[in-house]
Amino acid sequence: MKKPSLTILGCHSSIPTEKFYPTAQILEIKGFYNLIDCGEGTQVQIRKSKIKFNKIINIFISHLHGDHYFGLIGLLSTFHLLGREKSITIYAPKGLKEIINIHFKLSYTKLKYYIYYIELSSQELEKIIDNDKIEVYSIPLNHRIYTNGFIFKEKPSNRKLNIEEIKKISSIKIKDYKSIKLGLDFKTNNGKIIPNSKLTFDPPKILSYAFCSDTSFHIPIVKYIKNVDLLYHESTFLKSEEEKAIKTGHSTAYQAAYIAKKANVKKLLLGHYSNRFTNIELFKKEAKEIFYNVETSVPLKKYYL
Amino acid sequence: MKKPSLTILGCHSSIPTEKFYPTAQILEIKGFYNLIDCGEGTQVQIRKSKIKFNKIINIFISHLHGDHYFGLIGLLSTFHLLGREKSITIYAPKGLKEIINIHFKLSYTKLKYYIYYIELSSQELEKIIDNDKIEVYSIPLNHRIYTNGFIFKEKPSNRKLNIEEIKKISSIKIKDYKSIKLGLDFKTNNGKIIPNSKLTFDPPKILSYAFCSDTSFHIPIVKYIKNVDLLYHESTFLKSEEEKAIKTGHSTAYQAAYIAKKANVKKLLLGHYSNRFTNIELFKKEAKEIFYNVETSVPLKKYYL
Repeated sequence: MKKPSLTILGCHSSIPTEKFYPTAQILEIKGFYNLIDCGEGTQVQIRKSKIKFNKIINIFISHLHGDHYFGLIGLLSTFHLLGREKSITIYAPKGLKEIINIHFKLSYTKLKYYIYYIELSSQELEKIIDNDKIEVYSIPLNHRIYTNGFIFKEKPSNRKLNIEEIKKISSIKIKDYKSIKLGLDFKTNNGKIIPNSKLTFDPPKILSYAFCSDTSFHIPIVKYIKNVDLLYHESTFLKSEEEKAIKTGHSTAYQAAYIAKKANVKKLLLGHYSNRFTNIELFKKEAKEIFYNVETSVPLKKYYL
Repeated sequence: MKKPSLTILGCHSSIPTEKFYPTAQILEIKGFYNLIDCGEGTQVQIRKSKIKFNKIINIFISHLHGDHYFGLIGLLSTFHLLGREKSITIYAPKGLKEIINIHFKLSYTKLKYYIYYIELSSQELEKIIDNDKIEVYSIPLNHRIYTNGFIFKEKPSNRKLNIEEIKKISSIKIKDYKSIKLGLDFKTNNGKIIPNSKLTFDPPKILSYAFCSDTSFHIPIVKYIKNVDLLYHESTFLKSEEEKAIKTGHSTAYQAAYIAKKANVKKLLLGHYSNRFTNIELFKKEAKEIFYNVETSVPLKKYYL
């Protein structure tokens, strides 16, 4: 299984321009392609990323400000025009379903695929996906309107077979692999117990990702995102505009780094930059004042957990 | 006054891609900037065109298929974020107002400017603007859902003063210019009548533009668009795909040219190309089989009436 990766499609705030794309990103984790937010123009960014539309099976919308979802109706419409049949699940605040439905109603569009809506309204941590590969949680952020962050966690994998050792024991058949992968010891035909640790390697480490945008500087989120491998935290402003950040419900790069440090995350990824800043290295520089492992989001760049 | 011009922002059909932009264009006529249709990404195309957002005072939406209006909510939102105070008027089929309102309601946006909605539902020619500079009409097209074309006509200008001749007659004062421009003769202090034709030049010719997209091949529109100076008529397909055109309510380049010829227009501008055709010169070639003055729409190119 591939290492989870995050492809940034857009990482600027509010107004799309020729160079600045609003929030959208794709997290590939355990074979699941998850689109997180979908600002205007996201479908064209997905094309540029070379990720196939049909691979996306979940869409998460953090909140109903336009720079986080105005591209969704176009994307869903394109899925339809390209003949998509595979269903999709949209996790979004209450209200989005109504918007999408009214668009399709007015154009008399009968979709060729099914949209499942999971309407989010919790004010606490909520598990919204739990299957044998991943868990996803929504967490309350603190913005001007109801906004969720999302945490994605891999489920533990099976242990990996040590084929070289296994081949030395003739009574192990292929049908035994399943129980060995689950960690059970093996009993040979003549009753000898082979400890599992001799037959397997440890599975890969469980990885996790947290998306926190948009939010003001909000210490209560720290408890939810403790120790994640990658944290995307918005940094709309620099410290020099902290007042503006407070007024608009956003964070500075310094505040994002403070949260990263408090939560002991492995790596911090900054984004949702205000269009007023053209040099995004300034965000990194500011965050590095208190947290060592910082990267800046760049459209179409892929980041590994 | 400048000659009316049409700036194409997008001229492809259905799905936006890296190279293909859905329908949007700006007609500048007698100082009025009119946005016609507004597919996803239009706001970025407007930026590239260097036309200032604030100049646009009218928006015309032909029909509620996404490739003609999915960019509107983003554009209206951007107007708001940039502090627009000037009102705007949107001429669109019934239903659009509801869509826009629900978007803004869910994000708790209280717009800083006013939107006037003129809801179109006529099945006949209807005059929708009539001021001292221009007249605009909606006309019924024939597509899969309720769709309007639009005709823009300049109002006659005043006659132009022949300053050289006027200066020879000392009793003409500046206060007399108004009536002379309106075509009245002038009576000098000693009772001599100077015919207006001696004091003025003819005003510039009245120009007109017709937008017809999307529509199947529909002869009844000919009577509305007779003799216009520029006709934008959709040509989604080539003759080779005429069946597809019929099935989807679109036209071929040949059919667009047939309409142009029947209506005796000055110039035909083709557009709304299906993404399957990469060489748009083929559309021009086909149209030229029966109509001599054909141009192809190209994004960000300006066409004069």
